[in-house]
Amino acid sequence: MKNLDNLGRIILASQSPRRKYILKKINLDFKVIPSDIIEDFDETSPSTLVQTCAFEKAKKVSMDNLNNLVIGADTVVVLDKIIMGKPRNVNESREMLCMLSGKTHKVFTGVSIQNINKNINELFYSMTEVELHIIPDNIINYYIKNYEPYDKAGSYGIQDWFSSQIKKINGCYYNVMGLPLSKVFKCLYDLSVNNLND
Amino acid sequence: MKNLDNLGRIILASQSPRRKYILKKINLDFKVIPSDIIEDFDETSPSTLVQTCAFEKAKKVSMDNLNNLVIGADTVVVLDKIIMGKPRNVNESREMLCMLSGKTHKVFTGVSIQNINKNINELFYSMTEVELHIIPDNIINYYIKNYEPYDKAGSYGIQDWFSSQIKKINGCYYNVMGLPLSKVFKCLYDLSVNNLND
Repeated sequence: MKNLDNLGRIILASQSPRRKYILKKINLDFKVIPSDIIEDFDETSPSTLVQTCAFEKAKKVSMDNLNNLVIGADTVVVLDKIIMGKPRNVNESREMLCMLSGKTHKVFTGVSIQNINKNINELFYSMTEVELHIIPDNIINYYIKNYEPYDKAGSYGIQDWFSSQIKKINGCYYNVMGLPLSKVFKCLYDLSVNNLND
Repeated sequence: MKNLDNLGRIILASQSPRRKYILKKINLDFKVIPSDIIEDFDETSPSTLVQTCAFEKAKKVSMDNLNNLVIGADTVVVLDKIIMGKPRNVNESREMLCMLSGKTHKVFTGVSIQNINKNINELFYSMTEVELHIIPDNIINYYIKNYEPYDKAGSYGIQDWFSSQIKKINGCYYNVMGLPLSKVFKCLYDLSVNNLND
């Protein structure tokens, strides 16, 4: 794995194990420094919200790591006009899954890639539609009890047991997991950060 | 994990590690008995081809396991009217990926679920559209050299490094990997094979 020295080691400004997993798919060498910003943004559109939040997460870590390339990301689930973040408890979890059952929702992930000293400031988002089967109550209860999806926007993980309830998606799969991989790859490739020399 | 006793232990009639991985997602208890049929079917449509092949795979194993529920599957990649199976060598691999680059292709998986003694004979297929970015030659060469995708229809794995080249999909993600998980789950659930009592 090679990074161009002048862009510095890559930092993922997120503690999500799923984002780590996704970046490892492309054999990227990076370290993790979670940003501890308070996610309290008043944006009207989901695409603006996730980009603003991703930018602030990356900026917070970039300020202490001016020579590094920092990646920040934020994901929300949107059903009609309702924006869902992470459920706070079992009741919110059940409420979210009941609302999503049998319907098509949208997953937005915003991504910010910054290197302050090199004046790099890439910002983009990706949207994927996800259609769920109608999920009976006993399946919702089984899932919440066994998988405790409290750290996931919309209260489900597309990569875990819940995948059995997903009828189809339209868009980038990894975007639903938390990071639109092919867009991130292309951005890094255009910045000459790649590992194709291995 | 519980199976209804009268349907017998589930057998996956496939040696694909990806199909094993997918079935394990739903915590299914099963064993693997690959079927050694010669995949030489002259069907005109991809959906008929994969269903015929899946049926014959499951039937071959079912004949020696009359009391078991046997799952067979077959996957092909289709670009325009060209049906792609597994590449036989590096040249075929390169040829397939060059053809797929920058275009949208279709992935068909046929599934057969049989229990001969109980007269169960379920047959269905799933189709997912996959759109790839334009992939430069150096990336195609890098991928073939490092990932040797010779055991995969169309010469790529949607779950490995190649995921970085996938712009979007429309349909079931696991169908592209080799087994349409939510359709299989629904079929097993309707047959009362499930693990929701755990």
